[in-house]
Amino acid sequence: MDSGLDSNTSPPENPLSHLDQNGQAQMVDVGQKQATSRTARAAGRILFPKGVLEQIVDSNGPKGEVFGTARVAAIQAAKRTAELIPLCHPLRLDKIAVDFDVLPEQQVVIIEATVKATDRTGVEMEALQAVSTAALVIYDMSKALSKGIRIENIRLLEKTGGKSGDWSAD
Amino acid sequence: MDSGLDSNTSPPENPLSHLDQNGQAQMVDVGQKQATSRTARAAGRILFPKGVLEQIVDSNGPKGEVFGTARVAAIQAAKRTAELIPLCHPLRLDKIAVDFDVLPEQQVVIIEATVKATDRTGVEMEALQAVSTAALVIYDMSKALSKGIRIENIRLLEKTGGKSGDWSAD
Amino acid sequence: MDSGLDSNTSPPENPLSHLDQNGQAQMVDVGQKQATSRTARAAGRILFPKGVLEQIVDSNGPKGEVFGTARVAAIQAAKRTAELIPLCHPLRLDKIAVDFDVLPEQQVVIIEATVKATDRTGVEMEALQAVSTAALVIYDMSKALSKGIRIENIRLLEKTGGKSGDWSAD
Amino acid sequence: MDSGLDSNTSPPENPLSHLDQNGQAQMVDVGQKQATSRTARAAGRILFPKGVLEQIVDSNGPKGEVFGTARVAAIQAAKRTAELIPLCHPLRLDKIAVDFDVLPEQQVVIIEATVKATDRTGVEMEALQAVSTAALVIYDMSKALSKGIRIENIRLLEKTGGKSGDWSAD
Amino acid sequence: MDSGLDSNTSPPENPLSHLDQNGQAQMVDVGQKQATSRTARAAGRILFPKGVLEQIVDSNGPKGEVFGTARVAAIQAAKRTAELIPLCHPLRLDKIAVDFDVLPEQQVVIIEATVKATDRTGVEMEALQAVSTAALVIYDMSKALSKGIRIENIRLLEKTGGKSGDWSAD
Amino acid sequence: MDSGLDSNTSPPENPLSHLDQNGQAQMVDVGQKQATSRTARAAGRILFPKGVLEQIVDSNGPKGEVFGTARVAAIQAAKRTAELIPLCHPLRLDKIAVDFDVLPEQQVVIIEATVKATDRTGVEMEALQAVSTAALVIYDMSKALSKGIRIENIRLLEKTGGKSGDWSAD
Repeated sequence: MDSGLDSNTSPPENPLSHLDQNGQAQMVDVGQKQATSRTARAAGRILFPKGVLEQIVDSNGPKGEVFGTARVAAIQAAKRTAELIPLCHPLRLDKIAVDFDVLPEQQVVIIEATVKATDRTGVEMEALQAVSTAALVIYDMSKALSKGIRIENIRLLEKTGGKSGDWSAD
Repeated sequence: MDSGLDSNTSPPENPLSHLDQNGQAQMVDVGQKQATSRTARAAGRILFPKGVLEQIVDSNGPKGEVFGTARVAAIQAAKRTAELIPLCHPLRLDKIAVDFDVLPEQQVVIIEATVKATDRTGVEMEALQAVSTAALVIYDMSKALSKGIRIENIRLLEKTGGKSGDWSAD
Repeated sequence: MDSGLDSNTSPPENPLSHLDQNGQAQMVDVGQKQATSRTARAAGRILFPKGVLEQIVDSNGPKGEVFGTARVAAIQAAKRTAELIPLCHPLRLDKIAVDFDVLPEQQVVIIEATVKATDRTGVEMEALQAVSTAALVIYDMSKALSKGIRIENIRLLEKTGGKSGDWSAD
Repeated sequence: MDSGLDSNTSPPENPLSHLDQNGQAQMVDVGQKQATSRTARAAGRILFPKGVLEQIVDSNGPKGEVFGTARVAAIQAAKRTAELIPLCHPLRLDKIAVDFDVLPEQQVVIIEATVKATDRTGVEMEALQAVSTAALVIYDMSKALSKGIRIENIRLLEKTGGKSGDWSAD
Repeated sequence: MDSGLDSNTSPPENPLSHLDQNGQAQMVDVGQKQATSRTARAAGRILFPKGVLEQIVDSNGPKGEVFGTARVAAIQAAKRTAELIPLCHPLRLDKIAVDFDVLPEQQVVIIEATVKATDRTGVEMEALQAVSTAALVIYDMSKALSKGIRIENIRLLEKTGGKSGDWSAD
Repeated sequence: MDSGLDSNTSPPENPLSHLDQNGQAQMVDVGQKQATSRTARAAGRILFPKGVLEQIVDSNGPKGEVFGTARVAAIQAAKRTAELIPLCHPLRLDKIAVDFDVLPEQQVVIIEATVKATDRTGVEMEALQAVSTAALVIYDMSKALSKGIRIENIRLLEKTGGKSGDWSAD
């Protein structure tokens, strides 16, 4: 049983960095990495059966409680990413923002989350966690109207910072 | 400012039961409901760019750490649904199970979660939370291989119990 | 060192039921109590220096984000009362609702929370936790405008159910 | 739907910094701020109906369990401020201390909390969260003696560090 | 991929009930079990290098803060057992008590925890979680005095209730 | 009631640094300390009655679900150390790894955890929390086979970094 204190220098690494040489899950060592500014933007869509989204928009009225509630829950879940995703590091978050684009004629709500941090590893999972939680909250608040709601196309849109550099979907 | 102690008897209700007559978010009163056996089954898919899933299956080897880690995290997140989804009630959970179907030639992993409870309200959100968390964990453990992974088609497959009765997707 | 399995029958009890005969903190035994319907209503006030509340109401505009955010956080905190208050039991909550009364000419926001449960012990602490958290969230979102905001008069308004019966503040 | 990656540079800002230009809640960007030493001191009072506080002090005896329990819970809650208050950042806390001043002849317990951090934003909310939680724990442990206990005057006493500089209540 | 809705009736079961027929972790179905009164008592010991325990007892003085802090943390951790131990069910806890026996001449502190619940499964893990957390808190508060402290002999002493009946260590 | 803002400079300190001059629990001030690289390695053992461990190893088969589940739970618990141990600081963790050594002929499983951080205080408690949680998870998954399982010899093996320097057992 090796101490693991130097395991980050041992070749050959598993192509999945969250698994060590024996294929066991580990929280990988970020101790040698620099804390730099990182951003990630992720998105997802909720697809409603016909007629459902209109009722939500109507009921919601001027208060925006459905989307406001989803936004707050998404921000809170993003802060708890390291609790929910076992191999994520707790990060020093700079900013979390969540936006909704309601497209009633397409029966769709688009969710987009932006997260920033100054840390040794990226914030992709925090942005995806925010999107995923916002989608579940909207589902929860709409499910009395239909059981056929679907959450689709949760994905990374863009990231900046870190060793792997900047990236954006097409 | 009304005490709200009897607000569950006041017509006309908002079609979104999580909003009260003023369009404000509330955790709805389940005090008059019977605790009965409830089940829900939900599913989702992870779609990988070509060549990625093979590497996960290979690295994973006999240990199954990626899927085992995702399963544990999904079970734990399902138990925390009421913490993450603001208007969910804490429930008396009977069972949580999570299964994966790995389809390398289709570049897809299918996730399915089954939750049971004996309580006054259903477990749809717990099953969806499990699926959603399992998908995020697999994404996290695979993201070093590709930034183009997508989570798709998170939806309810089946529910039993409760006033609205049994339901299953065609 | 006694097993404690029968300590709830031993006279003379400490007048503070959360302390045992040796003055040590314990979560008291509710195993012999009946699960009955319980309600509690609690309130509190936030007192703003002159001119501050107007800016919140203006900025808040039609969206109600400050009060909506406080309401969501209050509902979530009420569900976590047993995590935050060491000797509280986890309860089977039926309902949580939070209301705000904004009185700009008095520079005051009144917060009121109603909680219901069907369980062996009361929900006073859940209602007080909701009020207290709502007040802190409003404080947080207003503190850029003034450091002189104060939270006042957090108290129980009414309770029903349980061995000690119904009670209301005159 | 804007990416939000540069939204912290866009005039005119909402006077409530936790709301963006559209009045939506966000966790504001602290990425450009310097991590400096910050302190905050907050206080609050618990006011007891006549005769109650004497019983607490007597029962409490040499063990101090009521105040010791409140202190531990307050320290733990302060560390969880970012979980409870949706728009707070997780902070790198240096120190948390909680003191009680028991004034039986005035039927009052004064609570004071001091928090320090080395981070990009202040610790006012952590100090207020500690005071608020300590008050609720003492309320919980005393409530068998009286339902008329009140929590009063939760407020900031002093802060140091940060762009807005030092401040103390007269 | 089977729905799992009836998997609790399928022979032959894995001798480890937390693993299904395929050796995969699951939270087992307790839906058919009766809620009955359950108790568990667990214990553990902390063994100190010579001279350390005296200093703790002296510093601790009349206040008992070390043991009081450990007791509060142990009660809180026992309530969070289902969050920490992945396959545990959330339980309806009746009582939690934690006792310490300080034996300075043997350089030992004995920890004992008693937990009661009225539920479908036992509270052994809650009692063991309380003991284990109390031991870690005492370790934490003592570790400035010595790095050679050890936690020993964490075990179940007694359980009552449930299908497997009453049991006690000889 | 002193502000505590300068209490870290006041002699004479309590030999237990987690208690202030009045013997009250506090989270000690690390604001003047340098963030440096810290490691800790801790271990513990689970001792099984005869015949039990063989069944676990057999049932576990190629999947390793018992040890995989314990590893994930241990990593997650280590990240939550500051929530569970009241006077621990939240730390900037670099790495967490957990290993098991299964010795069937000795009826023993040895658990070892390694934690690294770049912060102002050490990670001994995180490593001990990981070991302790891994032991409880294995206990939970094995307890249907025997009630006589014991957790033994949880201790620090090695630490590096910090003012007190490097240390290793024997």
